[in-house]
Amino acid sequence: MTLILSNEDVERVLGMDETIAILEETYRELAEGTGISRVRSDCLAPTSHEDAIYGLKSMDGVVPSLEVGAVRINSDIITWPRTGNHRRRVKVPAAPNDRYVGLILLFSTASGAPLAILPDGVVQRMRVGATNGLGIKYMAREDARTAAILGSGWQAGAQLIAAASVRNLEEIRCFSPNAAHRQAFSQTMTGLLGIPVLAVDHPEEALEGADIALCATNANSAIFGPEWVRPGQHISAIKHVEIDSAAVALADRAVTHIKDSSPIHCVIEGMDGMEALPSRYTAKGWADIEALDFAAMPELTDLISGRVPGREGRHEITCFINNFGLGYQFAAVGWLALDKAKAAGLGREVPTDWFTETVHP
Amino acid sequence: MTLILSNEDVERVLGMDETIAILEETYRELAEGTGISRVRSDCLAPTSHEDAIYGLKSMDGVVPSLEVGAVRINSDIITWPRTGNHRRRVKVPAAPNDRYVGLILLFSTASGAPLAILPDGVVQRMRVGATNGLGIKYMAREDARTAAILGSGWQAGAQLIAAASVRNLEEIRCFSPNAAHRQAFSQTMTGLLGIPVLAVDHPEEALEGADIALCATNANSAIFGPEWVRPGQHISAIKHVEIDSAAVALADRAVTHIKDSSPIHCVIEGMDGMEALPSRYTAKGWADIEALDFAAMPELTDLISGRVPGREGRHEITCFINNFGLGYQFAAVGWLALDKAKAAGLGREVPTDWFTETVHP
Repeated sequence: MTLILSNEDVERVLGMDETIAILEETYRELAEGTGISRVRSDCLAPTSHEDAIYGLKSMDGVVPSLEVGAVRINSDIITWPRTGNHRRRVKVPAAPNDRYVGLILLFSTASGAPLAILPDGVVQRMRVGATNGLGIKYMAREDARTAAILGSGWQAGAQLIAAASVRNLEEIRCFSPNAAHRQAFSQTMTGLLGIPVLAVDHPEEALEGADIALCATNANSAIFGPEWVRPGQHISAIKHVEIDSAAVALADRAVTHIKDSSPIHCVIEGMDGMEALPSRYTAKGWADIEALDFAAMPELTDLISGRVPGREGRHEITCFINNFGLGYQFAAVGWLALDKAKAAGLGREVPTDWFTETVHP
Repeated sequence: MTLILSNEDVERVLGMDETIAILEETYRELAEGTGISRVRSDCLAPTSHEDAIYGLKSMDGVVPSLEVGAVRINSDIITWPRTGNHRRRVKVPAAPNDRYVGLILLFSTASGAPLAILPDGVVQRMRVGATNGLGIKYMAREDARTAAILGSGWQAGAQLIAAASVRNLEEIRCFSPNAAHRQAFSQTMTGLLGIPVLAVDHPEEALEGADIALCATNANSAIFGPEWVRPGQHISAIKHVEIDSAAVALADRAVTHIKDSSPIHCVIEGMDGMEALPSRYTAKGWADIEALDFAAMPELTDLISGRVPGREGRHEITCFINNFGLGYQFAAVGWLALDKAKAAGLGREVPTDWFTETVHP
């Protein structure tokens, strides 16, 4: 049987502690050269959907120790609505019933069999949370007690859960531009974490004195500038454009998720304007991207394997940038979700024969 | 609804004439730069299956004019059994019920929605047949009447169907090493095509006087040498290793399927021996691969768009080498299969909601 899981199934079984643990364990294998990741590819094409482009994106990964391979696919209708001088990237839920399309397919390396098909949403959120959580675990001060977060969306929640999983936080302060959003977030997260999460009116209020500064937005340009950097701080971003390169330059240690951060771009000629390279439209954002040389930075596996230290003193400023995702993460976290969903009897079983064949070409 | 199709469904509706037509039409768009293909990636990893490796391969393509995108995935258990001095690449049907795993996922570029999931077998066979069929259409003599085929497997059948679709063949001669196989093939194909297909005992008997020489084997090294090249002949291969580079050198015009023929290799260190580069083990095969410079050859889209002529005289020797596949082919032919299957009421309908989500990460 092949299991079809929903985001609800995955959410019910997938905890942050164990997501961090499985990533840490499998990243060690990646560091040792016994794991495989195929860099993301983006096929960008015209769509009949108004003022939008179509994106077909995929990435693959194999975790041999878990006997699992994964392909993660996104089939997106993407728009770039303008707000003031900026354009924001907004995916449109254009599939039937106003839904988005992101899938993970899991395969057995022992038999080749398709083990499961699941939406990518919850796994994506958890793997981003867990990845930045590992950044905090290896780089933030052991005695970090306060965290600030810029952003109050779905990803921001996972960032706080992960931070609270690896450090004994006593206070969290949240800023995001929309007061209603940040207040709702504060209420939900306070209840969820059992730690006071305060909504504040200005980013300065959130950041002042924070041991850990978390950026978790969908911004297209820098939202965290050099003026906010403080000794002893750990800075964390879920997108590389969130942190101004001048802020990164102030860090004693800056670590990236992966050095090799160039997706394969397959773009129809003439579409390499706004759609393919949105950052062009916010000159600062684009300049920031240019200024960060990920290949020259240590990457997360270097921290986990002990090849580079995360922090060597309580006054050091550390910075972790989750620049790009890996198919490998979807194999590891997808495997965990499947393992736990099976144990809990969740999901729809369909005959594996539906997705296999008697011929091989 | 999302349609789950089987190879049987696809086989019932997908004809060679229209497969050739859809590829020809969509290749014209590819030539014009309005189609997208993401080169195949191969993740090769250890497997617990005895004496084998695990391969997770994927390729993507988008045909904007058909409003379809495709991801093709293979999840293979691969072995290299030795026969005499050679090793042959053999996929093992290790999935439940002794089955292979190859999938095509089709998506709508208008909504992002997953349209269908189907096994890749029949589409793969038809697109290889149709691709080499286009080679014949654009390069073989208009009055070609006899064809020889080396090979008697599943792919060989599609090669003959395609050849008979684009030329008025009157006689076909087949050689393959196993007498029982070639006799069974001869009987089946004679019935199917209504053209005598003779099984012969030596490759020479098949090739002598043949206007079209088809190679359709799973050989790892050259099976078609320069001694068999004749004026006016069209030579066709479904794998680049089948034709000795010395034979290609004798051709007045040699065209490849695609210039960019390097899949992305994601291989665990130390696995780049037999498993990753099998051709190393047959020195001749390896040398052949090295000798052919696909990037310097015209490609199929050049013929179809008229950028290069296919043949300019009846005594010219022409050669078409189907060196690598394209995700684009799976989008085009997959779309056709889906369109016809829907019209015929075939396939299993499952809720599209199973493969979509309300969140986007």
